[in-house]
Amino acid sequence: MSNKIRLGILGGGGDSLIGVLHRVASAMYDKYQIVGGVFNPVFEENIGFAKKIGLPTNRIYKDFDTLIAEELKLPVNERMQVVSILTPNFLHFPMAKKLLENGFNVICEKPLTTTYEEAKVLNATLKMANTVFAVTYTYTGYPMVRQMREMIKNGELGKLQKVDAQYYQGWINPIIHDKEKRSTTWRLNPEKSGISCCVGDIGTHAFDMLEYVSGLKVESVLADLNYLYEDNKMDIDGTVLLRCSNNVKGVICTSQIATGEENSFIVKVYGDKAGLKWEQENPNYLYLMEDGKPLRVLKPGHSYNSALSLDGTKLPPGHPEGIFDSMGNIYKGVAKAINKEPYDHGEYPTIIDGVRGMNFIEKAVESHQKGNVWVAIETID
Amino acid sequence: MSNKIRLGILGGGGDSLIGVLHRVASAMYDKYQIVGGVFNPVFEENIGFAKKIGLPTNRIYKDFDTLIAEELKLPVNERMQVVSILTPNFLHFPMAKKLLENGFNVICEKPLTTTYEEAKVLNATLKMANTVFAVTYTYTGYPMVRQMREMIKNGELGKLQKVDAQYYQGWINPIIHDKEKRSTTWRLNPEKSGISCCVGDIGTHAFDMLEYVSGLKVESVLADLNYLYEDNKMDIDGTVLLRCSNNVKGVICTSQIATGEENSFIVKVYGDKAGLKWEQENPNYLYLMEDGKPLRVLKPGHSYNSALSLDGTKLPPGHPEGIFDSMGNIYKGVAKAINKEPYDHGEYPTIIDGVRGMNFIEKAVESHQKGNVWVAIETID
Amino acid sequence: MSNKIRLGILGGGGDSLIGVLHRVASAMYDKYQIVGGVFNPVFEENIGFAKKIGLPTNRIYKDFDTLIAEELKLPVNERMQVVSILTPNFLHFPMAKKLLENGFNVICEKPLTTTYEEAKVLNATLKMANTVFAVTYTYTGYPMVRQMREMIKNGELGKLQKVDAQYYQGWINPIIHDKEKRSTTWRLNPEKSGISCCVGDIGTHAFDMLEYVSGLKVESVLADLNYLYEDNKMDIDGTVLLRCSNNVKGVICTSQIATGEENSFIVKVYGDKAGLKWEQENPNYLYLMEDGKPLRVLKPGHSYNSALSLDGTKLPPGHPEGIFDSMGNIYKGVAKAINKEPYDHGEYPTIIDGVRGMNFIEKAVESHQKGNVWVAIETID
Amino acid sequence: MSNKIRLGILGGGGDSLIGVLHRVASAMYDKYQIVGGVFNPVFEENIGFAKKIGLPTNRIYKDFDTLIAEELKLPVNERMQVVSILTPNFLHFPMAKKLLENGFNVICEKPLTTTYEEAKVLNATLKMANTVFAVTYTYTGYPMVRQMREMIKNGELGKLQKVDAQYYQGWINPIIHDKEKRSTTWRLNPEKSGISCCVGDIGTHAFDMLEYVSGLKVESVLADLNYLYEDNKMDIDGTVLLRCSNNVKGVICTSQIATGEENSFIVKVYGDKAGLKWEQENPNYLYLMEDGKPLRVLKPGHSYNSALSLDGTKLPPGHPEGIFDSMGNIYKGVAKAINKEPYDHGEYPTIIDGVRGMNFIEKAVESHQKGNVWVAIETID
Repeated sequence: MSNKIRLGILGGGGDSLIGVLHRVASAMYDKYQIVGGVFNPVFEENIGFAKKIGLPTNRIYKDFDTLIAEELKLPVNERMQVVSILTPNFLHFPMAKKLLENGFNVICEKPLTTTYEEAKVLNATLKMANTVFAVTYTYTGYPMVRQMREMIKNGELGKLQKVDAQYYQGWINPIIHDKEKRSTTWRLNPEKSGISCCVGDIGTHAFDMLEYVSGLKVESVLADLNYLYEDNKMDIDGTVLLRCSNNVKGVICTSQIATGEENSFIVKVYGDKAGLKWEQENPNYLYLMEDGKPLRVLKPGHSYNSALSLDGTKLPPGHPEGIFDSMGNIYKGVAKAINKEPYDHGEYPTIIDGVRGMNFIEKAVESHQKGNVWVAIETID
Repeated sequence: MSNKIRLGILGGGGDSLIGVLHRVASAMYDKYQIVGGVFNPVFEENIGFAKKIGLPTNRIYKDFDTLIAEELKLPVNERMQVVSILTPNFLHFPMAKKLLENGFNVICEKPLTTTYEEAKVLNATLKMANTVFAVTYTYTGYPMVRQMREMIKNGELGKLQKVDAQYYQGWINPIIHDKEKRSTTWRLNPEKSGISCCVGDIGTHAFDMLEYVSGLKVESVLADLNYLYEDNKMDIDGTVLLRCSNNVKGVICTSQIATGEENSFIVKVYGDKAGLKWEQENPNYLYLMEDGKPLRVLKPGHSYNSALSLDGTKLPPGHPEGIFDSMGNIYKGVAKAINKEPYDHGEYPTIIDGVRGMNFIEKAVESHQKGNVWVAIETID
Repeated sequence: MSNKIRLGILGGGGDSLIGVLHRVASAMYDKYQIVGGVFNPVFEENIGFAKKIGLPTNRIYKDFDTLIAEELKLPVNERMQVVSILTPNFLHFPMAKKLLENGFNVICEKPLTTTYEEAKVLNATLKMANTVFAVTYTYTGYPMVRQMREMIKNGELGKLQKVDAQYYQGWINPIIHDKEKRSTTWRLNPEKSGISCCVGDIGTHAFDMLEYVSGLKVESVLADLNYLYEDNKMDIDGTVLLRCSNNVKGVICTSQIATGEENSFIVKVYGDKAGLKWEQENPNYLYLMEDGKPLRVLKPGHSYNSALSLDGTKLPPGHPEGIFDSMGNIYKGVAKAINKEPYDHGEYPTIIDGVRGMNFIEKAVESHQKGNVWVAIETID
Repeated sequence: MSNKIRLGILGGGGDSLIGVLHRVASAMYDKYQIVGGVFNPVFEENIGFAKKIGLPTNRIYKDFDTLIAEELKLPVNERMQVVSILTPNFLHFPMAKKLLENGFNVICEKPLTTTYEEAKVLNATLKMANTVFAVTYTYTGYPMVRQMREMIKNGELGKLQKVDAQYYQGWINPIIHDKEKRSTTWRLNPEKSGISCCVGDIGTHAFDMLEYVSGLKVESVLADLNYLYEDNKMDIDGTVLLRCSNNVKGVICTSQIATGEENSFIVKVYGDKAGLKWEQENPNYLYLMEDGKPLRVLKPGHSYNSALSLDGTKLPPGHPEGIFDSMGNIYKGVAKAINKEPYDHGEYPTIIDGVRGMNFIEKAVESHQKGNVWVAIETID
């Protein structure tokens, strides 16, 4: 019998891209075996998908509740150990909550929930359950993001004095200018997508990333969001001023109407000793800038990197790894936690990252609605 | 007798870098001859400098007032036609004003003055004088900046929907953390440098550039500035939210504590058809981004560029020109105006650019001091 | 029962990096299931490794011959369908030959064999066996390499007139200058590594890539190799002049003493209509150069790409994929061939690529040894 | 009276681009004053051009011989001190020779002459004249090229082991495929352009640059040139294998049919300690590669640069300078030599560079014509 971690999957069937990402990530370090799940709400499609990806169908369930019920009947050493939630956002909360209440470890796609209130409930539930819970802010798994975090933690930038993240995309441009399209896209429908499109989808990545690499906490925000059309109910662009712990100021610039941009997520942190810059579209380069010295460009796999970074590189320098590898690293970290092996807290984002992300979304929207005023981010533990 | 434009220079002696920039720029298209000036307040150094740069000393004057008085005695066809003001900022206003009142054309370094009030007076003076007046926002002379302006003007981006400028430097980092140094640097002394360091020095470049390339007018600003230390009286970092004409929103991010950054001035404009990006440190590349099409990279000197852009390129593609060439283009435009030749309004920045720049500085500081609120930019003509 | 392709693996145990690459690649499109193999020559380590990667041990065999014997006892619908050979180079030939003789499909690491003679024998064996045989020139699986091939095939470059490949590494630099180290490294030992180090290891990649993307055949070569030290028996640097079909000339520059280079493999092809450039370290960018037009930068996942390219991208534009994804694409192509599904000949490199690669190595060394003269590459089918 | 160096110019009138380059370069450091010359063979155009560029016409001569005769009548302290030769190539030799014989300093465009024989004669003439003679291999004036030279000279790369230069252009592509055009272009006419087009025009730049930065001497060459059409008499592409002093091997790749390339001149030198790379189209970046360390990117104007490099930068880091500035640096070095001030031998290319360049052209063509064999480069002093 394989000693791999038994993984169940919720959602991610059909043409789902996120499904591919999680399946490949789970395979990357030989740590997981997918044993079942519910890929689609329609049972025939669910079974068909399982066959298509070469899975036995005996643990493909007709719905989530059945999955819970049937898995609980299995002996512990056969039962799913962890379940990945890849369903539409509004299902994250009830699924995660019930999984936790029944003792499962959980890997949950972002956003954690649709409201901050739900997120806090989930956090409380997790404290009772005491299982492993990861939120897949995928970009934190890149080796050079991890290296950025470690260098800052080790004081290589000195005292931090400025943080800046840009996350520009252009994908909504062909949609937003068409009255028909913008009224029918689920991403712009508050009932389906929560209260924010741009801040909710990519602003949270920027928020989480800045906290992840800098070790700072964002304490308050002032946001100016952009809806472009009066009949559009969701922000599709916005700038958020930040005030962080240690009196550090910063800014998050986000847009989904940055026409022609693909996924331009750029992170910059400056301290009194040096600055660091990283760009998601070229994730294997980390730029170290020091007063009056040549720019240094760090790349993955070299021994000058930290242990946390090196743990996330599989091949020698010059063999580019990408976003699948980044997600693979998060799964690897979760596997260590499930297997009670030692791991670094930077190996996967936790529920606290997810809860703070939800609070950030709500506070950014609140700041905008109140006329671009400062609003405090709540503290959570 | 040479038919070159007779140019006088104020300041720019000694080790002045700006002096080199203006002298080379004036030589670039064979249009100007430096005939005299006042390079230094100390007469011996003034004369010594003139000799060092190979100038006859007969029109090197002991001070500005003498220059005016003596030049006016010369017949018009020998008199200086234009005077470049490269002196410390607080001298720009009195010198420019007197030059205008005496009928000289003027090329003035930025910032135009030390206050918006002075700037408006100067504008009124110019209206009476009706001479040529240029403010050297140097970066607008780059061929690919001009190309950006023309493409936007011609509608290649469609209706604009987002503007963004970043101007990050790190030069003040080694100064700001040393109590002694930060209290003695003239750049951080309000009496010598006006009310703002970062917004005043580089924020204005970003402001002018966004208006130059986009054709939009910034209508109001909300600024969050950063002083880092309580005893520091001048901002050395700041983010300014923008609301522009045509309901376009935007942001200007500036910093002088972005440790290790040199002169990272990046301009992005997005419309509903496409986006454009330009970076000052690699000024010969203009990036055109369109939904679902390959990124296109435009370079100077190609026939696909606009007339305004091509007018600013001296060599064929692949022969990189730089900032001296950019300033040379501004001098070339001024020469056309002085010589009453036809020219494009994009060829050099005018006093209006200078006046608006001063207003931007004051309004950004006002916004910050009032608690990060929206403040309107005044209209001027 | 899973309908995945049953995959066996030879070699790749212990700390093998190539083993990780093949395992992840095989998992990437849900097409393969690893059912057994021989990971290590020492049986305990072999079993230990299987457990470590979570495999059942019932089909982990003590050696290659046992694997063949035992697998043949299994019914066809349980037997391994394809075996990946990741062992040291000298084992490729006997293993591949026996596998073919017993009807297995084969995925073989490069170089195919240690001599051209062996390679030809293998080719003859394959003709008898009529199974699927792939040689893992990994880089041909990148989406933008595939796109380059398709654009050239479709005439977008016009008539080709120049090909150029550079493959520079620096890894042998710390070894080559130490007499002790260079005499003990297996890579510089002809008995273990064949007759060439640099041409054999990376020159062949360049050779195969040029033929892959251009559709041309290299017809003759003139090589100048570099051994640096008299006691060193293997080239560690060399330039190879090329004459190709259609009277196209070209050059392959290779080095392992390009100190500080990681894996700088750059491919350029120029035709009378346009040129294309691709760089392995930034594999998601393809540069299209046309006379007098802006440079165009193509990226994966956009609908402007060919079907062959798009088939190799799993996520939308802006989500960088890397070398694991490239190898995954090759495995995907092989899966189609094994499953008798339609596939493009560009989806995986065949034995012909492997045989020609071996001939290239031998001819380059022959050219050098004869005093840098032209030597013909043989034709094979 | 100005103490600037009195400069005469031959050629460079009309729409000449090279004329602009030399005039701006001469003005860049306030060291030269253009006092006269012969810009055009037609006297009216000559005078007209002088007026257009604002020069007094009293020393604009009707032809070269008149210039010599009249200038010699002037007292030494009024006479032209240096003459720049920008005429068609075949005139370089007779003009330079006569100038030297009459005691003038000379700045001569490349190629120095049309044959190696002429070049040697000129070298002998210079030895008699003992004046200053510079050949404008423009690219050697870039600050980061100078930095490359100094770092190599100071041993920062250790013992050199590989040199590589690529010089790819595409400009002849639209000409070469048209039988009419290729037979009428002067660049492809041996009577007007000597025996080589591609090697002669850009290959020599690569040859000179490699010797300039590395300090090595190329000792023999093996060339494979490309003419594309039988009726085309001049190479328009070619690869040249190099054997240099200290047993260093290398390669020069050149092309004018690299369709879509602008002026892609890339220089790489590798030693046993590190490697350096520089690209002409982005001349302000110098890449230092060391085993197992982060890539370092050096930029102009920083104090970590050598004195030779810093002497060629006028503004602080982040203010990009370009090819005009590079030529300006060469003029600055020549001015020092003329003024008998101390200067570094790296400040301007000498006649020896020009002579060796001519020999390189002839030997590369000889190697090709003899069937791609090794041919020795002659030594000269």
